[in-house]
Amino acid sequence: MTSVVDVTVDGERLHASLERLAAIGATPGGGVTRLALTDEDKAGRDLVRSWMEEAELAVRVDDFGNMIGRRAGTEEGPAVLFGSHCDTVRRGGRYDGAVGVLGAIEVVRTLGEQGITTRRPLEVVNWTNEEGVRFEPAMLASGGVAGRFDQEYVYSRTDRDGRRFGDELRRIGYLGREEDRPRPPAAYLELHVEQGPVLEDAGLPVGVVEGIVGITWIEAMLEGRADHAGPSPMRLRRDALAAAARLITGIERLANDTDGAVATVGRLNAEPNVINTIPGRVVMSVDFRHADPERLEILVAGLEKLAMSVQLATDVEIRLDRFWTSEPTPFDPGVVGAVQAACEELALPVRRLWSGAGHDAKYLQDVCPAGMIFVRSEGGLSHSEEEYSAPADIEAGANALLRAVLRLAGVA
Amino acid sequence: MTSVVDVTVDGERLHASLERLAAIGATPGGGVTRLALTDEDKAGRDLVRSWMEEAELAVRVDDFGNMIGRRAGTEEGPAVLFGSHCDTVRRGGRYDGAVGVLGAIEVVRTLGEQGITTRRPLEVVNWTNEEGVRFEPAMLASGGVAGRFDQEYVYSRTDRDGRRFGDELRRIGYLGREEDRPRPPAAYLELHVEQGPVLEDAGLPVGVVEGIVGITWIEAMLEGRADHAGPSPMRLRRDALAAAARLITGIERLANDTDGAVATVGRLNAEPNVINTIPGRVVMSVDFRHADPERLEILVAGLEKLAMSVQLATDVEIRLDRFWTSEPTPFDPGVVGAVQAACEELALPVRRLWSGAGHDAKYLQDVCPAGMIFVRSEGGLSHSEEEYSAPADIEAGANALLRAVLRLAGVA
Repeated sequence: MTSVVDVTVDGERLHASLERLAAIGATPGGGVTRLALTDEDKAGRDLVRSWMEEAELAVRVDDFGNMIGRRAGTEEGPAVLFGSHCDTVRRGGRYDGAVGVLGAIEVVRTLGEQGITTRRPLEVVNWTNEEGVRFEPAMLASGGVAGRFDQEYVYSRTDRDGRRFGDELRRIGYLGREEDRPRPPAAYLELHVEQGPVLEDAGLPVGVVEGIVGITWIEAMLEGRADHAGPSPMRLRRDALAAAARLITGIERLANDTDGAVATVGRLNAEPNVINTIPGRVVMSVDFRHADPERLEILVAGLEKLAMSVQLATDVEIRLDRFWTSEPTPFDPGVVGAVQAACEELALPVRRLWSGAGHDAKYLQDVCPAGMIFVRSEGGLSHSEEEYSAPADIEAGANALLRAVLRLAGVA
Repeated sequence: MTSVVDVTVDGERLHASLERLAAIGATPGGGVTRLALTDEDKAGRDLVRSWMEEAELAVRVDDFGNMIGRRAGTEEGPAVLFGSHCDTVRRGGRYDGAVGVLGAIEVVRTLGEQGITTRRPLEVVNWTNEEGVRFEPAMLASGGVAGRFDQEYVYSRTDRDGRRFGDELRRIGYLGREEDRPRPPAAYLELHVEQGPVLEDAGLPVGVVEGIVGITWIEAMLEGRADHAGPSPMRLRRDALAAAARLITGIERLANDTDGAVATVGRLNAEPNVINTIPGRVVMSVDFRHADPERLEILVAGLEKLAMSVQLATDVEIRLDRFWTSEPTPFDPGVVGAVQAACEELALPVRRLWSGAGHDAKYLQDVCPAGMIFVRSEGGLSHSEEEYSAPADIEAGANALLRAVLRLAGVA
């Protein structure tokens, strides 16, 4: 038997699998559209199932359509669960979550070839509807498994055409049984592309994810007075857009002054939005993200203070409506440590980073120790046909996954 | 004969005329919709014609539909021309230009009652299509008389439904002859509501207008990079809206630092304009106005410098397209002086101000000495159903018009 320390995945085989899956729902622009529970998703699932079976995984499907492939360990008890999702956004990229599902299958293929048995059972998972593009909200099926959403809620989600999640699951033949859901695992691991520019900027192929940042969404409504652009002297104006500009600059400063924070004003609508009228009204969004829940609250408090000072300075009335918050989710230190050690074992230079976007791992951390591995995204591009991760980086990520799985499951 | 110094208009009669005209095209919201060359405009014109005739004015209509009512003087030669326009915007105010036309008729009524004859002939004018809402551009018919637009151009302007100015003029029975255009007058005077807050802020009923400010319109295009709001650290972003905010604040500062300048960003569109994506592109308008053409150029140069510094600081590419400029038009010092003297004669506390918006007087200044009198607008509101000027202020404005006309035309 080869020394476990030398075992590595077959990067070419993994790459070939990614290429084959990417052909299902391929777009003319070089990307993929494989929305959850569509015919393309079914075709992708069928291919994934065949690969799972070839890797000698015992495949089952739960009541949310999650596909679980099990490999026995020498011991009974909770499994080490690892995987990601194969659904995509419209005109999305070829890698995204597919890297995590096919990377997990590649890990099992490698273990099989090398005759390695783990102490704990292994389970590879392909989560349903991670993207939330067809059925809102995102991460619906991992949330179901974690108890965030009940079955009735999940089944009643409808797409734009009024088709229900439950009906579509049955239609494509992936409606399984509740008792086939993953049991609370010993640990959960997810390999995924970064979807951001941090690893590229640092010149690193792989990153150790420390958690999922907290997100809070606020709508700011600015009420000034619409007036003719000509006859109103500057000092008599109540220009809602000029006030919005101060707010945006202040929001940027709040994030720059808070280590690890990001803040985005993504949406802004001015009224009446014509060239020669002073805007009387602006509605804009604020998106704050931080790993630390206290810092997130400090950002919100900073915005409230900022809004008051802008209101005083401009005589534009500002109301803030904080309408959604997702709390920060730090991953389990043991799992994060296992990923870090796996990378060190591979002599991979890595860094730790927080995920700015949501992933199934967020909900898994509710029920078990969880962690993630990120693979560098070229240009940080994501949810785009131009999304790209180099084969060597994906291979490095899959090797890190393999080593981390062995650390968490133990070699028999 | 009453001493000329004591002659004043009949404020109640003027008010009653304004009320009657406002009933034509009256809106449920208390305003008026009387777009140029519509049936409502025709009804308003017929009423104005009847009042002109009652005031013993000899009415003629020129080839642009301008209505001119003439009162002989004791001398031949150029007339003193005064008036404004009776067309409105959609759901506009009751006063706007109507104050100037009916104020001019009230002046002639008063002279008739008092038996006052002027040396120079007097001509009262109702200009066609000042607003430019139905047929672009604004001030089309005064521009035609001043030689800015030729007859073919004016006639071929079309409304949203494709109806031509020339056809509509014939349809409502107001297509006159080219030889009936106003001859180059000795002077032109226009009474109009201010459409801004300056007089109200100063607590004055009437203002002496020194000219029409210059206006320049610029489109700013900001190209950054659209990215996920989550995974992109602040320092790696190229946020087009954050750059736009700096530009807007800088533009406001440019105007605040330049005495007599106004600057407005009225229109802004961000892309993709969704809550969790960093805006990759912003297109926004810039409107600069100043009485001094050199200062106007300095504002534009300031914007160019500002855009360069914002581009350097944000890595967002900024292009500026200056697509329209209307040069500043200072009014004739003699006419401005006559208005000032008229106000002083009436013991009206006044101040001088520039008009931030265009008026027919702008084009008249091309062909003769011109000037304007502004009446206080409550709250500075204009082009709105809530537009309001108090009867006493309108009466004061009409008296100033009367005195200024007598100064410019001379009493026989």
